Amino acid sequence: MKTRRIQNLLAAALVGALIFTTTIAHAQEPLPSWNDGPTKQSITDFVAKVTKEGSPDFVPVAERIATFDNDGTLWCEQPMYFQLFFALDRVKTLAPQHPEWKTKEPFASLLKGDVKGALAGGEHAILEIIVATHAGMTTAEFEKIVADWIATAKHPKFKRPYTECIYQPMVELLAYLRANGFKTFIVSGGGIEFMRPWTEKVYGIPPEQVVGSSIKTKYEMRDGKPVLMRLPEMNFIDDKAGKPVGINSHIGRRPIAAFGNSDGDQQMLEWTQAGSGARLMMLVHHDDAAREFAYGAESKIGTFSDALMAETKHEGWTVISMKDDWKTIFPLEKN
Amino acid sequence: MKTRRIQNLLAAALVGALIFTTTIAHAQEPLPSWNDGPTKQSITDFVAKVTKEGSPDFVPVAERIATFDNDGTLWCEQPMYFQLFFALDRVKTLAPQHPEWKTKEPFASLLKGDVKGALAGGEHAILEIIVATHAGMTTAEFEKIVADWIATAKHPKFKRPYTECIYQPMVELLAYLRANGFKTFIVSGGGIEFMRPWTEKVYGIPPEQVVGSSIKTKYEMRDGKPVLMRLPEMNFIDDKAGKPVGINSHIGRRPIAAFGNSDGDQQMLEWTQAGSGARLMMLVHHDDAAREFAYGAESKIGTFSDALMAETKHEGWTVISMKDDWKTIFPLEKN
Repeated sequence: MKTRRIQNLLAAALVGALIFTTTIAHAQEPLPSWNDGPTKQSITDFVAKVTKEGSPDFVPVAERIATFDNDGTLWCEQPMYFQLFFALDRVKTLAPQHPEWKTKEPFASLLKGDVKGALAGGEHAILEIIVATHAGMTTAEFEKIVADWIATAKHPKFKRPYTECIYQPMVELLAYLRANGFKTFIVSGGGIEFMRPWTEKVYGIPPEQVVGSSIKTKYEMRDGKPVLMRLPEMNFIDDKAGKPVGINSHIGRRPIAAFGNSDGDQQMLEWTQAGSGARLMMLVHHDDAAREFAYGAESKIGTFSDALMAETKHEGWTVISMKDDWKTIFPLEKN
Repeated sequence: MKTRRIQNLLAAALVGALIFTTTIAHAQEPLPSWNDGPTKQSITDFVAKVTKEGSPDFVPVAERIATFDNDGTLWCEQPMYFQLFFALDRVKTLAPQHPEWKTKEPFASLLKGDVKGALAGGEHAILEIIVATHAGMTTAEFEKIVADWIATAKHPKFKRPYTECIYQPMVELLAYLRANGFKTFIVSGGGIEFMRPWTEKVYGIPPEQVVGSSIKTKYEMRDGKPVLMRLPEMNFIDDKAGKPVGINSHIGRRPIAAFGNSDGDQQMLEWTQAGSGARLMMLVHHDDAAREFAYGAESKIGTFSDALMAETKHEGWTVISMKDDWKTIFPLEKN
């Protein structure tokens, strides 16, 4: 009997040790939603070499800057940029105060749900929509409008909040880089004040580390209280050749790692690569029609042109295949 | 003999303990260059209440944002802004390539050492000087020009590098706030790319936490390498009503503490104060002709107008008297 008890105790201890070891292994696995392979390896190899003191590739913590595009890189951008869904909902909300929109483009088309027709007016139409939906209020008022919308609106295809249409593998990548001393920044063509109300909660990226497009603001006194009014005038477009300009203006240091998914990110990756020392440039490729969307060269949103693909190969940048490299696309998803 | 030895040992231990205690006390004293009194007390009281968990004034670490003006707040700004000394030295260096400057204003006056005459041309003259000395090169080239200048140039009165004409009490304040979880930012009317090459080393403030005035830059390929060219065009003036705009654009959060010294900081302090919860607004008053300079309402540089003083009193902002509140002005100084 005594021997049996000892055996039982030993067995229990062994099982316990196994569970313990597995848990530890799981906790230490930094990128659980990434499949093993050369893509994941290129990330872990890069991080290992820039963080290893004494290595020729070592980078001091203060210089570990990583920049991420948002639309199509950190969250979904189809069937259209989420900020456009926001603008569309704003137009519907504001329509009763603007009876003239019933016959005035681009609003007439938008109110009929014809986004393509509304955008046929090109840049002028887009500016009109932005002015009508993003300007004419204080920064604090706009922040609340965005926060209320993002808390309730849902993606038409995935039927979940937009903030849950983020890519789980990229969220893990952000956390992994930060755990290795990196400062993570968003550098997006999207509106800076459209992102800031939720990026800290959703990505762990605080407002001061968000770079984006902006409209002008003006300091004013309203009822004896200072406010910043959002003016109907573009200030900065943080896209394509604007991304290195935005990075220089906001961060003032060159990133050592940059992540994008489209032609809009080409210059950010070039600018990152042109620094000295170890660099990591990666582009998410949307090749997963079953779990998300498949699009590339021919797409109007998130164009990944043949020219960009050629440059990617020529420069040795890494393409992330959503289909092959990611176990999971969205958080909390059952695969 | 034995008793004597024990006595000696005890005495040595006591002396050791005293030295140890004094050292500890010194290490714990966070603002050694500040005289005790209500000004210093207002700082330590504020920090105590916003960092005390459970207190009604508690502020989470992520929201502990403190903004500092630079010229006249963190470093000296007399007899003229140090960036103007830089521009003057640049004009002298570049003069051989510009024989036409001998007869062309504002350069002709500058080359004769007549700064007042050069600036008589007003904003147009200043813009001409900025364009000639701050534009037409890449951002990397400009960074090197600034770094080389700041490493060698000396203040005409104090005969020490400009980076040693910083205020020791403010350097201690920056460190004290950071030790209490604050993120410290510079928000200056000075050029953002004039400050970034040295603020990390001198103040412990990294480039991404520097907000300032800027000229436009443009992304270009030069010999197959991407560069940002500095264009002869102003982008943003981070002064007066521009400071809240710059804070909103770069930080995206309202500061809970703000430090300035002149009319250029008035709106930054108003914007800081207008948030909810505990706030700290302070203005350095240059009232120490013996150790630095004494100037205020009548000064063209760093004007502290009667209107600002009235608002300061009305709003309960704190005036820092250099003469009364600071034991030391500059670092490594023997008082």
